[in-house]
Amino acid sequence: MVKRGLIIGRFQPFHKGHLYVVKHVLEEVDEVVIVVGSAQYSHRLDNPFTVGERLLMIRQALQEAQIPLSKCWLIPVPDLHVHMLWVSQVIGYTPKFQIIYTNEPLTKRLFEEAGFNVKPIPFHKRKIYSATEIRNRMLNGKNWKTLVPRAVARNIEKISGVKRIQELAKTDKV
Amino acid sequence: MVKRGLIIGRFQPFHKGHLYVVKHVLEEVDEVVIVVGSAQYSHRLDNPFTVGERLLMIRQALQEAQIPLSKCWLIPVPDLHVHMLWVSQVIGYTPKFQIIYTNEPLTKRLFEEAGFNVKPIPFHKRKIYSATEIRNRMLNGKNWKTLVPRAVARNIEKISGVKRIQELAKTDKV
Amino acid sequence: MVKRGLIIGRFQPFHKGHLYVVKHVLEEVDEVVIVVGSAQYSHRLDNPFTVGERLLMIRQALQEAQIPLSKCWLIPVPDLHVHMLWVSQVIGYTPKFQIIYTNEPLTKRLFEEAGFNVKPIPFHKRKIYSATEIRNRMLNGKNWKTLVPRAVARNIEKISGVKRIQELAKTDKV
Amino acid sequence: MVKRGLIIGRFQPFHKGHLYVVKHVLEEVDEVVIVVGSAQYSHRLDNPFTVGERLLMIRQALQEAQIPLSKCWLIPVPDLHVHMLWVSQVIGYTPKFQIIYTNEPLTKRLFEEAGFNVKPIPFHKRKIYSATEIRNRMLNGKNWKTLVPRAVARNIEKISGVKRIQELAKTDKV
Amino acid sequence: MVKRGLIIGRFQPFHKGHLYVVKHVLEEVDEVVIVVGSAQYSHRLDNPFTVGERLLMIRQALQEAQIPLSKCWLIPVPDLHVHMLWVSQVIGYTPKFQIIYTNEPLTKRLFEEAGFNVKPIPFHKRKIYSATEIRNRMLNGKNWKTLVPRAVARNIEKISGVKRIQELAKTDKV
Amino acid sequence: MVKRGLIIGRFQPFHKGHLYVVKHVLEEVDEVVIVVGSAQYSHRLDNPFTVGERLLMIRQALQEAQIPLSKCWLIPVPDLHVHMLWVSQVIGYTPKFQIIYTNEPLTKRLFEEAGFNVKPIPFHKRKIYSATEIRNRMLNGKNWKTLVPRAVARNIEKISGVKRIQELAKTDKV
Repeated sequence: MVKRGLIIGRFQPFHKGHLYVVKHVLEEVDEVVIVVGSAQYSHRLDNPFTVGERLLMIRQALQEAQIPLSKCWLIPVPDLHVHMLWVSQVIGYTPKFQIIYTNEPLTKRLFEEAGFNVKPIPFHKRKIYSATEIRNRMLNGKNWKTLVPRAVARNIEKISGVKRIQELAKTDKV
Repeated sequence: MVKRGLIIGRFQPFHKGHLYVVKHVLEEVDEVVIVVGSAQYSHRLDNPFTVGERLLMIRQALQEAQIPLSKCWLIPVPDLHVHMLWVSQVIGYTPKFQIIYTNEPLTKRLFEEAGFNVKPIPFHKRKIYSATEIRNRMLNGKNWKTLVPRAVARNIEKISGVKRIQELAKTDKV
Repeated sequence: MVKRGLIIGRFQPFHKGHLYVVKHVLEEVDEVVIVVGSAQYSHRLDNPFTVGERLLMIRQALQEAQIPLSKCWLIPVPDLHVHMLWVSQVIGYTPKFQIIYTNEPLTKRLFEEAGFNVKPIPFHKRKIYSATEIRNRMLNGKNWKTLVPRAVARNIEKISGVKRIQELAKTDKV
Repeated sequence: MVKRGLIIGRFQPFHKGHLYVVKHVLEEVDEVVIVVGSAQYSHRLDNPFTVGERLLMIRQALQEAQIPLSKCWLIPVPDLHVHMLWVSQVIGYTPKFQIIYTNEPLTKRLFEEAGFNVKPIPFHKRKIYSATEIRNRMLNGKNWKTLVPRAVARNIEKISGVKRIQELAKTDKV
Repeated sequence: MVKRGLIIGRFQPFHKGHLYVVKHVLEEVDEVVIVVGSAQYSHRLDNPFTVGERLLMIRQALQEAQIPLSKCWLIPVPDLHVHMLWVSQVIGYTPKFQIIYTNEPLTKRLFEEAGFNVKPIPFHKRKIYSATEIRNRMLNGKNWKTLVPRAVARNIEKISGVKRIQELAKTDKV
Repeated sequence: MVKRGLIIGRFQPFHKGHLYVVKHVLEEVDEVVIVVGSAQYSHRLDNPFTVGERLLMIRQALQEAQIPLSKCWLIPVPDLHVHMLWVSQVIGYTPKFQIIYTNEPLTKRLFEEAGFNVKPIPFHKRKIYSATEIRNRMLNGKNWKTLVPRAVARNIEKISGVKRIQELAKTDKV
């Protein structure tokens, strides 16, 4: 039987820390299921990219890192904002998996309450490999490209992603 | 005709102040309709318990206080977040009632605009009999059990509620 | 530990067959959890009564039959129409239960897939103790009162329920 | 005080019978509030036109009939599909009104239960001045233009509305 | 062909700055489409008035300023909170338009990405002709009436709007 | 630049006709984007499988047919039921694509109105390579396995898919 490990993130954007996690999981299981959460959101300061844009970035980053696509699942899942339903939502959108890898306290709690095997992720330079840090650097015109795979940087440039974030910072819309 | 008074709360968790209100209302009407709001939410720092868990706590607290269940209605109602619809939502989920007891300014306003008889609640030690205060004490490892009926404390312990709140405090998910 | 059995229905309206099921379940467990589904719907030909109206009918029928309220939970639960989430929705709205009693194929399937103990209900005169049959009789001006507890009939009359159904039959709205 | 009468329809499309109703209502009140329901739907066989397209047709039909816009309100309102909330939804989207004109049994019932003054509409050639009849004629390539104001026919032609309906008839999507 | 310009706002409340924008747009196009956003919200501190109340204020302000209603469209549009869908939502609720006038960065960005012609608005005393400023003045009992058209002030008084805002400020509900 | 073609289906289940379409599209473009629609639905007679189950079937069928995963995108997209938003929903969930391949009249119409290049699909034995036909055969215990790739048949057997469909046929739930 195929053994699968699942990770969940918004990947706004996908960075080298995420890539490190994917590789780590693939050392322990056959396939990694990458759930791209908050799928419906985009064009917000903390959720700047559409899920289509994020899928493209992640996939090209995986290919660049020579991780076989046959070992990866990339699945967008929309938020429900109703936590009692979240585990079922994830189960319904994904192939059967045995382990969930997360350090996020709420995700950990919800999957543990549902009886899942939850494992922590050994973080790698967590302070700087952080999507919040990267978005802040973009916003302030600082260097962010070294924190993400080249394929991600290339895609963000193609869609003028930095300019989008700088413009979103000026809105007060929610 | 049966005379009913309605109260609305999230009861996260149900505390001695709430119990005092139930008793107060039952001195004025035949039956109290307890609307347990934000029914769909749980596992958030300000909404830690599922509505099923809250119904259980409240019911056992009423029984412990020897308030006959035949005088109480316990009704979960999900939030709509659209205030122009809220009064109709409450009416649709409940048996006919004549008075609504509340000190909450928005609830008061909405039911008054809809022509209802709204009465204030004589608060009892409001500063400490407060769900926010109780959740804060749980979070900080302080004594909270004296503020809630014993049945509530017992149920929170059974589901490791304090640990849940402490874990939820570490997430940045919404 | 309290042993609970759960039943799910729309109870449009609650009839003698339903009452029979409640009694049957209470012979096997300590408490019965009555989930009143499709809570948000009313004023449709197949969902004529609001959930508030249904809660009132059921509660008074239980009292009339001298079933202690302390053994019954009456919980409205709104439909999500997303079956992969339904079991979690029911779990979140209810106190812990061990058995679900149902003959409904979809409910049976969903709870079995989630690992629950599902038991069938020994039906009692199923053809006539049927909510569809009762609504049809109301629509066609035939005798329906013998099929429901007296408390239910009394409540339907108080709100001119038969007239409501007859009017709803004339609309083509959904 | 300004006296307002309200009518509700989907106006798929607005026809001469609707225009007749508007004129009739304006004989009794100062202003008519035209609620364009099912605002979110379009591109279905029974809801072919977007609400923006419908607003344009209705407005130009009113102008063509020399009914002053200052006496008419054209307000799109999305469906909620939860009938217990419908009256509040309509109230929230509209200016204060005193009378609702309708022959539709569900609308009549809901507004009467909410205490409104509901008046019937004297229908004018109801069999043929019917949106269903018009859509059927469009579908089958029969003459439909005589049943709608010229401004409506002109707009439907401009957006190739007949072709749209004929194509929608071939889909089995919902 | 009729040339239309579109503006979007919540108009909580409609003030003299908004009126100035409407006049400015009408100097450049034949008709102005006024989208009244966040249509479903009311009774919040930053969204105090129902969309029905807002439509009434705006319409009477336009009439007071002798702007012909035949040149104005007043269209309530509910928020979706999913920005990737927002442009389509606006297109679906409105008649065809050629230009959108906005200074709001998110709206500008979304419509530009969709290929629309977006023009800036020449602001007029932006600091004081601001809905936030006006609501703050109402809240603090300061003079706000000079900032809005007389028709708006009159309507707010009729519904005790200032008192509503002052009460909403006391709630902690969302 | 990578040239992408998009197809949309519910794939309940994915059959040999679908596989034929994927191969056909890949003769004309570099990558095929397979949108798995109605992602939220499952456990209905016409939508029996969860989207996670469907993704698994499709992926293994592609691998079995030796179509490189690097040329295929498998993206679940939930239905909105609001057709005016559908094209934007698809765009937001997917990487940039240039052509959409479809014979479905509504999809064709919506994408054409949005200015897309829509191409028809040369059907291959349409009568029998039909998901409806396959579900009917499953329901009636007839041979269906020859109509789907072996990987699909294997997966359906693993989850007792035929039994699920036969049970769903007995429910009257929606």
